[in-house]
Amino acid sequence: MKEKLSALKQRLTEAYDIQSAASLLHWDQTTYMPPGGIEARGRQLAVLERLAHQKFTDPEIGRLLDQLRGYEADLPHDADQASFIRVARRDYERRTSVPADFMAEFSDHSTRSYQQWTVARPDNDFASVIPHLEKTLELSRQLADFFPGYSHIADPLIDFSDPGMKTASVRQIFSRLRQQLVPLVEVISGQPATDDSCLHADFPEDQQIAFGKTVIEQFGYDFNRGRQDKTHHPFMTKFSLGDVRITTRSKLNDISEALFSTTHEAGHALYEQGINRDYEASPLGTGTSSGVHESQSRLWENIVGRSKIFWDHFFPRLQSTFPQQLQRASADEFYRAINKVQRSLIRTDADEITYNLHVMIRFDLELEMLEGHLPIKDLPEAWNERYRSDLGLVPPDNIDGVLQDVHWFHGTIGGSFQGYTLGNILGAQFFETALTDQPTIEAGIATGRFDTLHQWLAENIYQHGSKFTPDELVQRVTGHELTIDPYLRYLRTKYGQLYDL
Amino acid sequence: MKEKLSALKQRLTEAYDIQSAASLLHWDQTTYMPPGGIEARGRQLAVLERLAHQKFTDPEIGRLLDQLRGYEADLPHDADQASFIRVARRDYERRTSVPADFMAEFSDHSTRSYQQWTVARPDNDFASVIPHLEKTLELSRQLADFFPGYSHIADPLIDFSDPGMKTASVRQIFSRLRQQLVPLVEVISGQPATDDSCLHADFPEDQQIAFGKTVIEQFGYDFNRGRQDKTHHPFMTKFSLGDVRITTRSKLNDISEALFSTTHEAGHALYEQGINRDYEASPLGTGTSSGVHESQSRLWENIVGRSKIFWDHFFPRLQSTFPQQLQRASADEFYRAINKVQRSLIRTDADEITYNLHVMIRFDLELEMLEGHLPIKDLPEAWNERYRSDLGLVPPDNIDGVLQDVHWFHGTIGGSFQGYTLGNILGAQFFETALTDQPTIEAGIATGRFDTLHQWLAENIYQHGSKFTPDELVQRVTGHELTIDPYLRYLRTKYGQLYDL
Repeated sequence: MKEKLSALKQRLTEAYDIQSAASLLHWDQTTYMPPGGIEARGRQLAVLERLAHQKFTDPEIGRLLDQLRGYEADLPHDADQASFIRVARRDYERRTSVPADFMAEFSDHSTRSYQQWTVARPDNDFASVIPHLEKTLELSRQLADFFPGYSHIADPLIDFSDPGMKTASVRQIFSRLRQQLVPLVEVISGQPATDDSCLHADFPEDQQIAFGKTVIEQFGYDFNRGRQDKTHHPFMTKFSLGDVRITTRSKLNDISEALFSTTHEAGHALYEQGINRDYEASPLGTGTSSGVHESQSRLWENIVGRSKIFWDHFFPRLQSTFPQQLQRASADEFYRAINKVQRSLIRTDADEITYNLHVMIRFDLELEMLEGHLPIKDLPEAWNERYRSDLGLVPPDNIDGVLQDVHWFHGTIGGSFQGYTLGNILGAQFFETALTDQPTIEAGIATGRFDTLHQWLAENIYQHGSKFTPDELVQRVTGHELTIDPYLRYLRTKYGQLYDL
Repeated sequence: MKEKLSALKQRLTEAYDIQSAASLLHWDQTTYMPPGGIEARGRQLAVLERLAHQKFTDPEIGRLLDQLRGYEADLPHDADQASFIRVARRDYERRTSVPADFMAEFSDHSTRSYQQWTVARPDNDFASVIPHLEKTLELSRQLADFFPGYSHIADPLIDFSDPGMKTASVRQIFSRLRQQLVPLVEVISGQPATDDSCLHADFPEDQQIAFGKTVIEQFGYDFNRGRQDKTHHPFMTKFSLGDVRITTRSKLNDISEALFSTTHEAGHALYEQGINRDYEASPLGTGTSSGVHESQSRLWENIVGRSKIFWDHFFPRLQSTFPQQLQRASADEFYRAINKVQRSLIRTDADEITYNLHVMIRFDLELEMLEGHLPIKDLPEAWNERYRSDLGLVPPDNIDGVLQDVHWFHGTIGGSFQGYTLGNILGAQFFETALTDQPTIEAGIATGRFDTLHQWLAENIYQHGSKFTPDELVQRVTGHELTIDPYLRYLRTKYGQLYDL
C-alpha cells in the first residue's frame, strides 16, 4: 500500500508541477511579459492546462484511489495520509465528472467572453456581451448538471470554491446578516460624512510600496519565499510552498490603494506560506476554500490593518515617510478616514460594512439567473434596482454597474461571490477565538508585533492546508459552526465607537 | 498530405510550447525567483523537459515524417514546407537516436556536476570535480556513440551545435587562424600597454544600463517583443518570436561590462527577433547554429560596437551621460581602451584577438580528452601548459584556470567551444559581404543609424531561421564557403591602425 500511495503522490506531484508552471506563465503575463508575447503565451498556457488536466484525470489515479480505500479506512480521519487520499479522491471525482471537451469549450468561451468584456466595459456596451453571458449561463447550468442530486442548481458551483456550502445555507446566513447591516448603514449614513482628505495628496508610489513591504514583513510574510511586483489588478499566486508571490498597485493620490491591496494579498500569502511543507504539490497543499482564504486576507487587511491600535503605532511611521503630505493629520483622523462608511457603486472600493451588500446583490442575481427567473437582457435593470433598494444609489451607466466585475465574464455565473462575505464573517469568528486563546495579541498589534497572532493562525489554520473542510476547520478552531455573531460584534463595537452609535 | 503536414506542425508546436514554458521557468529562476523556490523549480523544470522530450520523440511524428517523404521530394529544397519537413526529420532522428533513460542520466549527472562546480571553484578544489568530469567524459563518449559512422568521436558533439561541422575541418580552420594570431599577439605585446583607465570610475549602474538600452534600441532590438533584466551571467532567451529577452550585468567601476554584454546579447536577440514569423514554434524558428548565432552577437558587440566610427558618434553621448567620470577622456582614448589587446587568463574578459586563443585551448583539450590521450586528473597541468605556451601566462590557481568555464560542468566535453571562434570568423565574413552589397552601412554607423545593416542581416540571415544549414547559409550569403580571410583582413586593418603595425 505504501507503494501505491507513493505512486499516487508521484502522479499528483507531476500534475501540480505542470499547473504551477502554468501559474508562472500567467504571473509573467501580468508582470513582465512584453506585448509581443501575448499570442504564444495563450497557446502555451492552453497546452500546460490541457496536460495538467490529463495528468489529474488519468484513470490510473482512479485505480490507485480505489486500491487505497481499505488503507485509508484504517487510518484516523485527520492522519496526513488519510487526508491526502480523501482530498485527492474528492478532487479526482470532481475533475473526472466533467468531460474534457466541455472544459475546453468553457475555457475557449471564457477567453472570448473576457476579451469582449475588456472592450465592452469602456464603451458602456452591455448589449455586446449579452450573447456571451447567455452562453456563460447555459454552460454554468450544464456544469452544475454534471453533479446531479443537488437541491439548488447553484450548489455544485458554490461547492467548487466553498466545499460543503449550499445555496440554502448561504442564503440564510446572508439574509440574517443583511437584516443587521442595512439598518446599520442607514444610521451611519444619517451622520455627517467623514473627512478623508488626508488620504489624498501626492504620495510617491515607490515610497508607498516600500512602506507596505515593511508592514507585511512585520506581519510575517517571508520575502525569502515570495516577492511583490506591480500589476493592474493585485493578486496572490503560488508556484510552490517556497514561492508564494503577491502583486500590488498604487495610486499617487490615494494612499489607501497600495496599503490595503498589499495587506490583503499578504493575508492570502501568509495562509499559503504557512501550509505544512509536507503537503507540497499535493491536494492538501493549498487553502481549503475561497471563504477561509478570504477570511485571512480580510483579517490582515481589515481587522488588523484598519484597526485603531494598529494605526496608533504605525501612523507616526507613515507620517515620517510622508512628512509633508501628512503633517496636518493625526492618527485618529487617519483611522477615521480609512474606515469611512459610504454607500457607493464599486464593490472593490467599498468600506468594510457596505462591501457585503455589494456581494449579496451579486449572489442573489446569480441565483435568479440560474433559476431562470432573470434573463440576461434584464440584468442591468435588475442590478440597478437592487442598488437603488439596498444602497440608495443608481449607477449612471453599466461601466460602474453590471459591467464592473470580471467574474461573470471569466468564469461561471454562480459560486463566484459568496466567498468574499463568508470571509468577512469567518475572519471575525477566527479572530475572536484567537483573542480568547491569546489575550496578548492586541497588545502585540499595538506595538507592531504580530508574531503571536501569526503563530496562532499558522497553528490553527494555515498549517492544515486543505486537510479539513471549511466546516471541519471552523468547528475545530472555534468550537462552533460558522456564525455571524462575532462579525456583528466586531462591526458594532468598531463602528459604534467611530460613529458614536 | 496537407493534413499530415498540419498534424506534424501541430504536434511540434505543442512540443516547442512546452519547451518555451521550461525556458520561462529558467529565466524566472535567474531573474526574480525568491531563494525558497529553488527546490520545486528543479522538479518543475524536469517535468516540463521530460514532457517536451516525449512530445518531440512521439513515434507518430516519425510516421508522419515518413509519409511526407514523397511530398517533400516534389518541393524545391528551399521551399518553406520542404525545409520544415527536412529540419524536423533531422531533429527527430537526432532526438530519437538517444535513449530517454540516457538523457535522464546525463541530465541528473549534469545537475550534480554543476552543483559541485559551484562549490569547487571558489575553493580552488579541482580534486573534488575529477569524478564528475570523468563521468561527463564517459557520458560524452557514449553520447557520440549513439551516432555511429563518425570520423572523429567529437564529430557528433560538434554537429549538435554546429551542424555540418567536423572535427577535421574545425581543426584546420583553427590551426590556420592560430598561425596568424600568435605572431600578431606577439607583436602587439611588444608595444607599450594601452591606457584603459578611462573605463574605470564610478559609473552609476542604472545609467550604464539605460545607455546600453538606447544603443540596442537603435540597433533595432524591439522592446515590444523583448525586455532586458539583470542576471549574474548575461544571456538571451526566447519564449516565442514575439518574446525574445536578454539579460545583462554591470560593474560600477567598469563601464565596458554592461555595455558589451548588452550589445552582445542584443546581437543574439536581433537574430531571433528577425526570424520569419511563419516559423513560430517550429524547427525552423531558431538560429541555425552556435557559430552563426555567435557571428551575430560578435558582429554587433565587436565589429559594430567596438568600432572607431561607432564611438566617434556615441562617445559624446556617453560623455554627456557621465560628464564627470569621462570629462578628461577623448573618443580616441576610449576607443583604444575598449580594444586593448592583452594576454590574460579569463576567456570572457579577453580582447577580440586573444579571445580565440582561449577558445582553441579548450577545443584542443576537449579533443585530447575524448581521444583518451588526456586523463582528467592531468587536465589542470595540460591547461596551464597551454596557457604558458599560447598566452605566456600561467594561472595562479585553478579558479582562474581550468575551473573558470561552466561548460564542461554542465554539458558535454566536446562541441562546447568551437562556436565562439567560428562566430568571430563568420561575423567578419558576413560583414564584409554586407559592406560590398550596401556601401552606405559604415556611413550609417558613423551617424548612429543601423537600419541598412540590420535590414541586410535580417534579409540575408535572420529571416531564414534554421531553414539553411550553416554551410548553405554562408555559401548563399557570401558566395563562398567559410573562410578566415575576411576576419584576418578585419583584424589586421583595425589593429594595424590601433597599434601602428
